[in-house]
Amino acid sequence: MKPSTASNELWPEVRSEQAEGSIVTEQPRRDSKWWGWGDPAISPELDGPAVATLEDRVGRLEPSPHIAKLEDFELPAAEPLPQSLVDAAGTDGVFTSTEDRVRHATGCGYVDLARLRSGRLERAPDAVVLPASAEAVGRVLEACAKEGIAVVPFGGGTSVVGGVEPLRGEHARLISLDLSRLRDVDVDHRSLTARLGAGLRGPEAEAALSRQGLILGHFPQSFEYATIGGFAATRSAGQASSGYGRFDKLVSAIRLLAPGGELRTLDTPHTAAGPSLRELVVGSEGVLGVIPDVTVRVRPAPRVRRYEAWMAESFEAGSEIVRALAQGPGLPDVIRVSDQEETRVSLALSGPRGVTGTLFGGYLELRRKRDGCLIVIGLEGDEGSVARRRALTVRELRNGDAAYLGQSAGQSWEHGRFQGPYLRDTLMGMGAIVETLETSHTWTQLGDLREAVGAAIEDSLAAQGTPGLVFCHLSHAYADGASLYFTFIARARQGEEVEQWRAVKQAASEAIVAAKGTITHHHAVGRDHAPYMKAELGAAGVEVLRAVKEQLDPTGVMNPGKLLP
Amino acid sequence: MKPSTASNELWPEVRSEQAEGSIVTEQPRRDSKWWGWGDPAISPELDGPAVATLEDRVGRLEPSPHIAKLEDFELPAAEPLPQSLVDAAGTDGVFTSTEDRVRHATGCGYVDLARLRSGRLERAPDAVVLPASAEAVGRVLEACAKEGIAVVPFGGGTSVVGGVEPLRGEHARLISLDLSRLRDVDVDHRSLTARLGAGLRGPEAEAALSRQGLILGHFPQSFEYATIGGFAATRSAGQASSGYGRFDKLVSAIRLLAPGGELRTLDTPHTAAGPSLRELVVGSEGVLGVIPDVTVRVRPAPRVRRYEAWMAESFEAGSEIVRALAQGPGLPDVIRVSDQEETRVSLALSGPRGVTGTLFGGYLELRRKRDGCLIVIGLEGDEGSVARRRALTVRELRNGDAAYLGQSAGQSWEHGRFQGPYLRDTLMGMGAIVETLETSHTWTQLGDLREAVGAAIEDSLAAQGTPGLVFCHLSHAYADGASLYFTFIARARQGEEVEQWRAVKQAASEAIVAAKGTITHHHAVGRDHAPYMKAELGAAGVEVLRAVKEQLDPTGVMNPGKLLP
Repeated sequence: MKPSTASNELWPEVRSEQAEGSIVTEQPRRDSKWWGWGDPAISPELDGPAVATLEDRVGRLEPSPHIAKLEDFELPAAEPLPQSLVDAAGTDGVFTSTEDRVRHATGCGYVDLARLRSGRLERAPDAVVLPASAEAVGRVLEACAKEGIAVVPFGGGTSVVGGVEPLRGEHARLISLDLSRLRDVDVDHRSLTARLGAGLRGPEAEAALSRQGLILGHFPQSFEYATIGGFAATRSAGQASSGYGRFDKLVSAIRLLAPGGELRTLDTPHTAAGPSLRELVVGSEGVLGVIPDVTVRVRPAPRVRRYEAWMAESFEAGSEIVRALAQGPGLPDVIRVSDQEETRVSLALSGPRGVTGTLFGGYLELRRKRDGCLIVIGLEGDEGSVARRRALTVRELRNGDAAYLGQSAGQSWEHGRFQGPYLRDTLMGMGAIVETLETSHTWTQLGDLREAVGAAIEDSLAAQGTPGLVFCHLSHAYADGASLYFTFIARARQGEEVEQWRAVKQAASEAIVAAKGTITHHHAVGRDHAPYMKAELGAAGVEVLRAVKEQLDPTGVMNPGKLLP
Repeated sequence: MKPSTASNELWPEVRSEQAEGSIVTEQPRRDSKWWGWGDPAISPELDGPAVATLEDRVGRLEPSPHIAKLEDFELPAAEPLPQSLVDAAGTDGVFTSTEDRVRHATGCGYVDLARLRSGRLERAPDAVVLPASAEAVGRVLEACAKEGIAVVPFGGGTSVVGGVEPLRGEHARLISLDLSRLRDVDVDHRSLTARLGAGLRGPEAEAALSRQGLILGHFPQSFEYATIGGFAATRSAGQASSGYGRFDKLVSAIRLLAPGGELRTLDTPHTAAGPSLRELVVGSEGVLGVIPDVTVRVRPAPRVRRYEAWMAESFEAGSEIVRALAQGPGLPDVIRVSDQEETRVSLALSGPRGVTGTLFGGYLELRRKRDGCLIVIGLEGDEGSVARRRALTVRELRNGDAAYLGQSAGQSWEHGRFQGPYLRDTLMGMGAIVETLETSHTWTQLGDLREAVGAAIEDSLAAQGTPGLVFCHLSHAYADGASLYFTFIARARQGEEVEQWRAVKQAASEAIVAAKGTITHHHAVGRDHAPYMKAELGAAGVEVLRAVKEQLDPTGVMNPGKLLP
């Protein structure tokens, strides 16, 4: 993998120009692949032995390297927008080029990318609107509500559940409301809070905080391109959320601009004044309104960051170690347990002869224990806190018979932790379907849930004649349970990728629902999980959300077809 | 104060029969004073010097020992209830005696008790309904919604904000729905969660958990009589919530039975499936429906509990110590800083010659530093955790120039921590008005908030010719701020107690609103704070809650006149 330009001692993998916030924002951003993930200059390759290992498991792959050109797209004709909307957005705030429309037509899920590569998109926004301020957002929403124009709020465009799909609902026109110009940063050092503009990408927010000695600590795999507003709107969790807290826990106050009025919560650390409106806005996925900024809790940047890897004898043994840690006082900031299949696949695809560069530098040590389950541990903080929690962590790891693999494998994981989506592009080009999905449950139910979902994915792939690799890791540990994150790789049914994906997704989702797990631990609902929201919330719960939406968005222009079934 | 019968090594102050759950629940409970707080056998007295100190500050008190007799009450005639409701409740589930109606006519706020002592109640429920199961609650709600009978959910009846006031709204009839028979306990040891019936009082829940080696850790001052359902419905915080977490953080899953349907959240540790319905039910104060049970996170009972007291030179110095602790890794489970006035008053009313027994056993040590500010520290957990966090805490205390007073003063605070409301009865009998109120803000705004609210209370009392004692403590510390808890004591305007209270309450509330603090950190909204909810949530926020209520309670029978302005 291409070495990245160091910009920041905490996130060496993040390119400096991005971290410094110098990307022009008077136009919609164009600094990532429009047809795939991230930096166009990064494209990892698998070497021969890695390909052989993969094909040994999923069958012979037929390469599918073709990627459509932007000029090949036949987008639906853009409906003209009323002058009132153009006035509201500002004359330099409306964009209608093919590239801008394509870049705002999908998120970054597997089906999105499959459609983009094919050059066939049935839907695109009529225009991309780029307001320069929260006030302009309010004016745009007012115009859209009045004119009946659907609005898809757009942050980083990294949704993997169809959260920014341009579904018009009952409206003839639709805009993508790109929030990337809302990037103010306002720090309250005494209270350790910061009001952050919704359009700040993860590295931009962290770089601004880092210059003041602070950290937010939110690192989802989409960190490089996802935005603060998106984190809040999707109730995001990051790789270090066991330590820093999920994004919903980091939010201290929030605003929502809606056609039906502005919601805002007070800047107080806690209130008992009724149901939490903050928790109604967090996770609202654009269907209630637009989040223009978020006040978050920050903390002093860690002085020490220690990552290391261990190997457990089995997934169950690894899970028990994590449970003991999560139910005790010393849970690490990052903790994840790969099952045996994930451990094996990681080795095969990322050993010294696998992906260029090393996802797992500790390859040789890992190799010796190839039938075990990899555990990655990350600890961040001051020297004392890291040392103390490491001692507690090591005690539980030893109690659970895990073997130490050293820091280099852990550091390699950390260094490569935002690289998974790049590898997906590679695998898609090789003719594979690659997708992930996640859920959570109590410790008591977690084993059954894992078994049921894993079997559902395997069976669905096999039934389609494309048996695949299915693997899982446990992460985001809580005292009462944990999340499970599944990945599957199989031969793509070329030309029928969407149908293939849909069958597997449905099988997995139905297995989750049957086991009473949650349909999503951190990817959010969007378009893909909306059909399962009745199982998640019950009929009355869905009706409550509908009532809230009707109050805030009476003409139904906000992000139609998402979140609600 | 009367020594209590030890029942439990963790809560020696809780009477054994209560902790053991042996109180008959086939009838509404009658084991507390109907006219005041708690155990009728407990009535602390102030001795001469304490009275002199008090009168020196508030003026000569005219004793007001008269308490009406139950037979003196002229309650409004009870409206007859339809047979459908009686059928729903069960023939042995409806109670209409004067005592039961009076016991369910108020909470335990100052105005409630002033009205009860006077024997004048304008309002009472037509009946007390005591369903034997969650299913029976559902049937009762259905009957009430159909017949247009207002329903006031009733847990411990300890609201201090008018949360159980029998306001009928537009309905001619009203029942108090007493949930004290819903007391199931169902523990999941592996996931460290417990489903607890709404009617369990604090000591009942803790005793049941304690028998299994577990603790919930929720200790509001109302702990002895308040219930699990009430904790959830009011978004309660307890004295040890800095450590164990506020009740909203302890809730992992919840149910709500409403006329418009049943809401229930999944038993998963986290979900990103949209806005949080759990956080919509927590804090709903009976206006959306009835919470029949709550699933909470529990933990192993602490092996060590260390309480100690320190003295800071000023409130500001004490606050800075708490801020440093809350923003670091070692926040104690209990931490509170009294201002100089509260420290002085505590000494005067509870020294060796004050209240019988000792609220502050460390009197002599305290005496030596009487112009300082008392800090109480409580640490609970295993030996290692307590020792480690104490070391961090002591470091910050010493950095902040606080002086150690020893464990006995801390233990005395802990032993007396549920006794404040008993002392209120004593002071009311002496002719005083005694009330508390609370708010919170960021560290940056906390000083201004404290000054503004304190001045508003003082000025309002002085303007009424009853200058008083006004004091404050800081507790419930967070990384981004803290709560402030105010107490005032003054001569009661006899016969006009309610008007006097209302003037002060209004002045304090307006000061809070002007400073953008929250109108309540943990007492909830009820009747008293409802007028300030528009300031708290904004107009759009209030309308969102109204929309939710209309969906779940279309005939408006649930707890009219509470929460919403």
